[in-house]
Amino acid sequence: MKKVIALGEILLRFSTTDHLRISQSNAFNADYGGSELNVLTSAANFGMDCEMVTVLPNNDLGMAAVMQMRKFNIGTKFIPKAGERLGLYFLEKGASVRGSKIIYDRTHSSFSQIKPGMINWEDVFKEASWFHWSGITAGVSQGAADVCLEAIEVAYKMGLTISTDFNYRANLWNYGKSAGEIMEAMVSKCHIILAGDYASRQYFNIHAKGESKDELNKSLCEKLKDRFPIAEKIIITHRDNISALHNKWSAVLYTDGKLLKSQSYDITDIVDRIGAGDSFMGALIYGLNHFEDQKALEFAVAASCLKHTIYGDANLVTTQEVIDLTQGDSTGRVRR
Amino acid sequence: MKKVIALGEILLRFSTTDHLRISQSNAFNADYGGSELNVLTSAANFGMDCEMVTVLPNNDLGMAAVMQMRKFNIGTKFIPKAGERLGLYFLEKGASVRGSKIIYDRTHSSFSQIKPGMINWEDVFKEASWFHWSGITAGVSQGAADVCLEAIEVAYKMGLTISTDFNYRANLWNYGKSAGEIMEAMVSKCHIILAGDYASRQYFNIHAKGESKDELNKSLCEKLKDRFPIAEKIIITHRDNISALHNKWSAVLYTDGKLLKSQSYDITDIVDRIGAGDSFMGALIYGLNHFEDQKALEFAVAASCLKHTIYGDANLVTTQEVIDLTQGDSTGRVRR
Amino acid sequence: MKKVIALGEILLRFSTTDHLRISQSNAFNADYGGSELNVLTSAANFGMDCEMVTVLPNNDLGMAAVMQMRKFNIGTKFIPKAGERLGLYFLEKGASVRGSKIIYDRTHSSFSQIKPGMINWEDVFKEASWFHWSGITAGVSQGAADVCLEAIEVAYKMGLTISTDFNYRANLWNYGKSAGEIMEAMVSKCHIILAGDYASRQYFNIHAKGESKDELNKSLCEKLKDRFPIAEKIIITHRDNISALHNKWSAVLYTDGKLLKSQSYDITDIVDRIGAGDSFMGALIYGLNHFEDQKALEFAVAASCLKHTIYGDANLVTTQEVIDLTQGDSTGRVRR
Amino acid sequence: MKKVIALGEILLRFSTTDHLRISQSNAFNADYGGSELNVLTSAANFGMDCEMVTVLPNNDLGMAAVMQMRKFNIGTKFIPKAGERLGLYFLEKGASVRGSKIIYDRTHSSFSQIKPGMINWEDVFKEASWFHWSGITAGVSQGAADVCLEAIEVAYKMGLTISTDFNYRANLWNYGKSAGEIMEAMVSKCHIILAGDYASRQYFNIHAKGESKDELNKSLCEKLKDRFPIAEKIIITHRDNISALHNKWSAVLYTDGKLLKSQSYDITDIVDRIGAGDSFMGALIYGLNHFEDQKALEFAVAASCLKHTIYGDANLVTTQEVIDLTQGDSTGRVRR
Amino acid sequence: MKKVIALGEILLRFSTTDHLRISQSNAFNADYGGSELNVLTSAANFGMDCEMVTVLPNNDLGMAAVMQMRKFNIGTKFIPKAGERLGLYFLEKGASVRGSKIIYDRTHSSFSQIKPGMINWEDVFKEASWFHWSGITAGVSQGAADVCLEAIEVAYKMGLTISTDFNYRANLWNYGKSAGEIMEAMVSKCHIILAGDYASRQYFNIHAKGESKDELNKSLCEKLKDRFPIAEKIIITHRDNISALHNKWSAVLYTDGKLLKSQSYDITDIVDRIGAGDSFMGALIYGLNHFEDQKALEFAVAASCLKHTIYGDANLVTTQEVIDLTQGDSTGRVRR
Amino acid sequence: MKKVIALGEILLRFSTTDHLRISQSNAFNADYGGSELNVLTSAANFGMDCEMVTVLPNNDLGMAAVMQMRKFNIGTKFIPKAGERLGLYFLEKGASVRGSKIIYDRTHSSFSQIKPGMINWEDVFKEASWFHWSGITAGVSQGAADVCLEAIEVAYKMGLTISTDFNYRANLWNYGKSAGEIMEAMVSKCHIILAGDYASRQYFNIHAKGESKDELNKSLCEKLKDRFPIAEKIIITHRDNISALHNKWSAVLYTDGKLLKSQSYDITDIVDRIGAGDSFMGALIYGLNHFEDQKALEFAVAASCLKHTIYGDANLVTTQEVIDLTQGDSTGRVRR
Repeated sequence: MKKVIALGEILLRFSTTDHLRISQSNAFNADYGGSELNVLTSAANFGMDCEMVTVLPNNDLGMAAVMQMRKFNIGTKFIPKAGERLGLYFLEKGASVRGSKIIYDRTHSSFSQIKPGMINWEDVFKEASWFHWSGITAGVSQGAADVCLEAIEVAYKMGLTISTDFNYRANLWNYGKSAGEIMEAMVSKCHIILAGDYASRQYFNIHAKGESKDELNKSLCEKLKDRFPIAEKIIITHRDNISALHNKWSAVLYTDGKLLKSQSYDITDIVDRIGAGDSFMGALIYGLNHFEDQKALEFAVAASCLKHTIYGDANLVTTQEVIDLTQGDSTGRVRR
Repeated sequence: MKKVIALGEILLRFSTTDHLRISQSNAFNADYGGSELNVLTSAANFGMDCEMVTVLPNNDLGMAAVMQMRKFNIGTKFIPKAGERLGLYFLEKGASVRGSKIIYDRTHSSFSQIKPGMINWEDVFKEASWFHWSGITAGVSQGAADVCLEAIEVAYKMGLTISTDFNYRANLWNYGKSAGEIMEAMVSKCHIILAGDYASRQYFNIHAKGESKDELNKSLCEKLKDRFPIAEKIIITHRDNISALHNKWSAVLYTDGKLLKSQSYDITDIVDRIGAGDSFMGALIYGLNHFEDQKALEFAVAASCLKHTIYGDANLVTTQEVIDLTQGDSTGRVRR
Repeated sequence: MKKVIALGEILLRFSTTDHLRISQSNAFNADYGGSELNVLTSAANFGMDCEMVTVLPNNDLGMAAVMQMRKFNIGTKFIPKAGERLGLYFLEKGASVRGSKIIYDRTHSSFSQIKPGMINWEDVFKEASWFHWSGITAGVSQGAADVCLEAIEVAYKMGLTISTDFNYRANLWNYGKSAGEIMEAMVSKCHIILAGDYASRQYFNIHAKGESKDELNKSLCEKLKDRFPIAEKIIITHRDNISALHNKWSAVLYTDGKLLKSQSYDITDIVDRIGAGDSFMGALIYGLNHFEDQKALEFAVAASCLKHTIYGDANLVTTQEVIDLTQGDSTGRVRR
Repeated sequence: MKKVIALGEILLRFSTTDHLRISQSNAFNADYGGSELNVLTSAANFGMDCEMVTVLPNNDLGMAAVMQMRKFNIGTKFIPKAGERLGLYFLEKGASVRGSKIIYDRTHSSFSQIKPGMINWEDVFKEASWFHWSGITAGVSQGAADVCLEAIEVAYKMGLTISTDFNYRANLWNYGKSAGEIMEAMVSKCHIILAGDYASRQYFNIHAKGESKDELNKSLCEKLKDRFPIAEKIIITHRDNISALHNKWSAVLYTDGKLLKSQSYDITDIVDRIGAGDSFMGALIYGLNHFEDQKALEFAVAASCLKHTIYGDANLVTTQEVIDLTQGDSTGRVRR
Repeated sequence: MKKVIALGEILLRFSTTDHLRISQSNAFNADYGGSELNVLTSAANFGMDCEMVTVLPNNDLGMAAVMQMRKFNIGTKFIPKAGERLGLYFLEKGASVRGSKIIYDRTHSSFSQIKPGMINWEDVFKEASWFHWSGITAGVSQGAADVCLEAIEVAYKMGLTISTDFNYRANLWNYGKSAGEIMEAMVSKCHIILAGDYASRQYFNIHAKGESKDELNKSLCEKLKDRFPIAEKIIITHRDNISALHNKWSAVLYTDGKLLKSQSYDITDIVDRIGAGDSFMGALIYGLNHFEDQKALEFAVAASCLKHTIYGDANLVTTQEVIDLTQGDSTGRVRR
Repeated sequence: MKKVIALGEILLRFSTTDHLRISQSNAFNADYGGSELNVLTSAANFGMDCEMVTVLPNNDLGMAAVMQMRKFNIGTKFIPKAGERLGLYFLEKGASVRGSKIIYDRTHSSFSQIKPGMINWEDVFKEASWFHWSGITAGVSQGAADVCLEAIEVAYKMGLTISTDFNYRANLWNYGKSAGEIMEAMVSKCHIILAGDYASRQYFNIHAKGESKDELNKSLCEKLKDRFPIAEKIIITHRDNISALHNKWSAVLYTDGKLLKSQSYDITDIVDRIGAGDSFMGALIYGLNHFEDQKALEFAVAASCLKHTIYGDANLVTTQEVIDLTQGDSTGRVRR
């Protein structure tokens, strides 16, 4: 099978242990992640051939990020070493009524200084069939947005399937352009859209209408389809926050005018929910390449449900474990 | 704003990790706390000017306790270095049907050897407006009770608001006086009483009457008000133990013949419930100095609800986080 | 009181920390356990005189296993040092919808090379009144099965009470004999049987009949009693897996044609469920030696319920803690 | 006694554990330090009244830095909360032939964005008698250099003693001015100079002449005294690197044309040498305020020698421990 | 072989990790030790039958101490559960020029409240051939001294070999009697004395005379022999502190007027030197029971040399490892 | 450049922390290594294209080993998943006079069950220029020896350079053939031999003659060259064990009748010496492909010297760091 390519920033994540607050912590766990990388990690983990495009600083931290990608079987051939620093963020893991808290420290990162022409996209996409990016990539800097659009256009021309995750982040998009203005051109060439109610309003001023959750979902998808007619499938995940460590999780997939609905999962004792949305996207890419739509949706929801039980940004579960869960094996019994 | 002063013992807490039993542990976490200090830590954390009065041994452990107080912005000017040892206790953290277990080792501590005349209370209270003590302080030793009464009388004369937490501990009060005898004189000069059903019976043989929880609470408050007419506000917290890591938590405040009731919180995945009552008292002191009664009560309950999610004796949450929770933001969603 | 003897394999358990997957782990906790040892540890913990029979390699790991047994007050006089290696297994602790996972690495272990004649059973049983073994012992190797039968026959002749736990493990029983063939002769001399629906089918092709859980339990017990008339008490535990860290737990005991039923416990926030069944058996042995049947059953269920809150294979709870739980003290309140 | 003031950047230090390389580390220890803060921590630790001037971001990391300063009894009244981020660095601790390695990530920090006028130096210096800064402060950014010069001029006018540590860092000084140009004006108003051979060449093109170490030291001091006649005392520390964990350490102090020489220490099994030079400066400030010159020099060398045995940037030793070492108690015997 | 009995206090040791100072530590390692217990642990470790006599509190800490003794194969049959608390101490591990530091917190311990009559010494010594005690036991309290003398007298009458370690601790001996007064009667019935220059002066005002180390040792032994003629062997260990983690270590044994001298060892990279003297004594007891004097002395020195490489109070080395070291295998090569 | 291929077993290494003994450890660090893999890791780390040939079990441990190889950029295309288990060993890290200790548990491993025909060597060697194996590979089992010979013969025919490390392990070679008999045929086709005095005697009964170290080295090399005329270079490393954490390290290379000698390094504070010999071999392969002989030898010695400072089996140092060391930068100064 041909390759999946993603473009995005890799961040060093410093997370507190044992639910400590940042101000209590004199040690942090360190992991490398980022939305688009997490998507690839999931896809690679299920066996797809993947290649990450990003920019890393030429130091030990950049090297460590490369080593982690190699470990997860992700290609690192198209990663310039340039710029000043690896972006990072601090994650304070909450519990019960106290939500987890993220402090970003990603300005002036190596990736934010990416410029058109640094990546030879024809070369990157030569043996590829899929390109993924997200709103975070576009929101980082003008350069990142330019390169992302450049990639989308080449990918489109070369016939790749293009997927995006809206991933609206309020603390990005501060390089002088409006988010909607930038995103419009990019999204309009995407075949697979992982959307979201809030992001659709922020980016495109699209407001879903309806009484029930189903009506709202359908309304949103229809409006997005109107706006972005190339989109073949529009997907919305739904998280219901009961508490910091107890969520409900499901998704819908809109295609050909129909709204497919997934099972809903009750997830208690959450180990790590960072990257759960990305694990959904990664599993969906795998699913859409291997199953019909309903099964692909169920696969993606179950995979991301399992992600909540896995430490770190990456979803390290087997295809079989995901399928077992879609078939009802959610009891968490001991497997010997 | 003027200072909040507290008198009490500081204990070194050795807690087991990962729910291990004491007999399984070959390492313990070490923290410095104590009911009255915890109250101050909360008040200081919300921005009040605080000063701790205690006695510490003149060794590295006493120094470490001082360093922690400084870290939390609590004054340490009035702390004699004297006596043999820092009292300590072991905390074995339970789970599910197994409750947490505490083993005290506080006899012969430096604080237990405090004597009247060691503290110049006029000096301590010079720029202060509030004095807090609890039943633990009084139960430690005759000397501690004497000094506490001494402090109460000076504080009363100098016009400070005096608050107390009944804090009945069965394993204290073994210096030859009955708890009630000692407490009567002290409580009778207090304006704010954090009472409790069981403690009221043990100290004063006061038995609440009523069918419902509300009737019982009101009855107890009325009887306490009769006995201690100076008390302006009487508060009762209510903890419902579902399991070791799942509690419900609420409180009532009785003033001017009315019983104000707080929201009730469902707290799962408890990180550390030691000091939750103290965090209530600290937040109440802050609340009563900044809000009207109902809001102060809600602030105190929400603050102590959040305390259950914070490791250690000290409640390290911001005023804004507490207010967000009182306004319904209890879903534990990720804050970026 | 006379001694309780058990025969079985001791395994070194490597468990992941903080719910990490095995592939994420660069450190493992190490503990020594095994079904029959866990039973003894419980019995010894409640004060019974216990002696373990096994085979250990003559190296530091064998020595460490002996040291742990001594720590838990279990006799180690009848343990030959022989063979190549200590069997071991890897435990990946799950959460929520992801169950825990065990990878065995126990082939060619010292215990699997045990042979008839290596143990002088007359000597072992001289001051003993109880012998316990389980289906795991029998499934390890032909030698282990031979020695187990040898032990059962001597124990039977010498008038000991013999208990067994069916403990069917699909990954054992690969030495060329069918499990049923081996087990038939052994179980037929047992007085106390901890059975199970699945194991009964696997071993003896016994299928319970009935609509309700109670009918099924009764049916199974009756059929087992028919097959093994020497059995005085047949016990079945019931685990309901809500999620990896949330189970329900109860048991029934069949004797004299009656089915006694225990309370059912809701166990959340499970710390470690490995060895919970063994802790049931160990507490049952203690219970049957100290209480009448219903109380023994309640004691065993409550003890094993508490086991879920204890790290490691061994159940380190006091008799009083178990009795408190049987009497309804399941709120997990703090004990000071 | 009057206050010691310092101006400088505070950095979050992420250090690897157990001599791991950065690329091997999935957890880092986190501490707050920085050359000028470390100087103050030492002075405060010996009992001096200290106040830090810096800029911190208005987030949890800035708050944590403040909490650490409070813990070490350093005033934090004059610290604006502004700017984007807390500067940080990674420390990989070496061993034997592999030296420790530092990766800075401090560009665009809050402190680098300090501007003249942000600090009211008259206010800061009101109750102060000493001002300390170092070449790092001046090398961070034009704004930092401007503010530093501003501070020096006010301090000079108000009669404070001014000390500096040359602290040349090749990776700073990239804001367009030459280091020498900036430093000349600043150093010319300093009374106490902690110089260095390499830094003197880099900053001022001053080259020591001589055969022996003593001659070289004397030559350097004389040339510096010629260039900066206000300097009352010029100090040079000497580190002899035997291996990453084995150094020799001594210093000389030049005053009134004489070169005082300290004892030389052999330091094996180094625990943490970061901040050792700063601990020298902090102890020297204390020493010059309490002892005559030779004793002050010995105190400073012994204090910084002990620093090599203390984890973190801060030197947590007592005055008595330092004096004991100056008097020959270097055997490391157990003190009970 | 018959049993070795010891009388002494067991202390819970809280040690800092990674050379942190106590004031830096928020976690401590916890181990159970004590001079006389450490002696027994060594003897038991080499295969001797041992029994500890002490008093422990009736709580989880007392139980944990018992569990550790069982683990090391030491009898715990004669240990009353009584009194208030387990004595404890804090150990701050030094490095290089900073020595380790101990803070005791042992007053009012369970053992200090031992009283004559609590132990049936005839029973304890029934199957024993050796009794060991040290100056620490005698210095704890009047009761401990009384019980120790009681034990010595019974042991002497019953023909046991009695050994003592002078173990002078300046912070003990504060119950109103002079150390010498108490020790005189006790030491006078001892056959084996582990003496020391400083302790001999403190206890008995005995001052060695001589130029060389050998002359001083001989002089001290002769004077001790004059004072305590029953003493058959007098032993002196010699520690040369190069730094906190680098010591030299040797010993002499005086018997029949001759001074036997051991090899001297150079011990670098010390892991834990607490209990090294006790491990010498334990190995000496083993040695004197198995070898002639010179070999016993070499065995004891080599064993305690190895102790410096073992974490904790207990010396966990095999007889073979000790013998290999006495025969020159000190290169620390890898053994496969 | 063409690929380097190695054949050998991968072992899971469980190492104790903080110099604990195995019997004290309740947690172990886990890493994947093995002599031939370690060689490749070094070569890959310096930038060579590498491919590992081995057999791994089809479970999470096998997967984890693959992930580690990918992380270090080693190809894993030719690794059958077969057999029962991953071999493992326990490493107890010594200190001072106590050497490190290894307990192997590798019998019946997946690799030991390798059989001729399982690997298509023509395919493996297609783009390769170098093949490395060691005496460990040959000593594991008859199958491993057969496959190793098979590989050597194909490699020889295809013109690859073949290197071997004698690596004699006394605890292997128990499958019924003498080591010498097996090794003779294999070594006779090798171009590069990392020999050793002890191994040469064990394998081939070759005894070096001479007075000085140089004469002995030369004699050994000459005799080996006589026996194995194809050998172009014969190398001997020399380790001088001062203590467990202090070694001296050097090597000689014999070629064209000349004996080249390397610098000798003094290595104190050793972090991890396991794999140091393998890191020498890996660096030598790199060196011989990039430098002339003397420089290659110095490169290999310096690289393996640095390895002693790196945790784990793998040598994670840069080419530049090695070259700096060969040029005398051994002071361990801080690099900023």
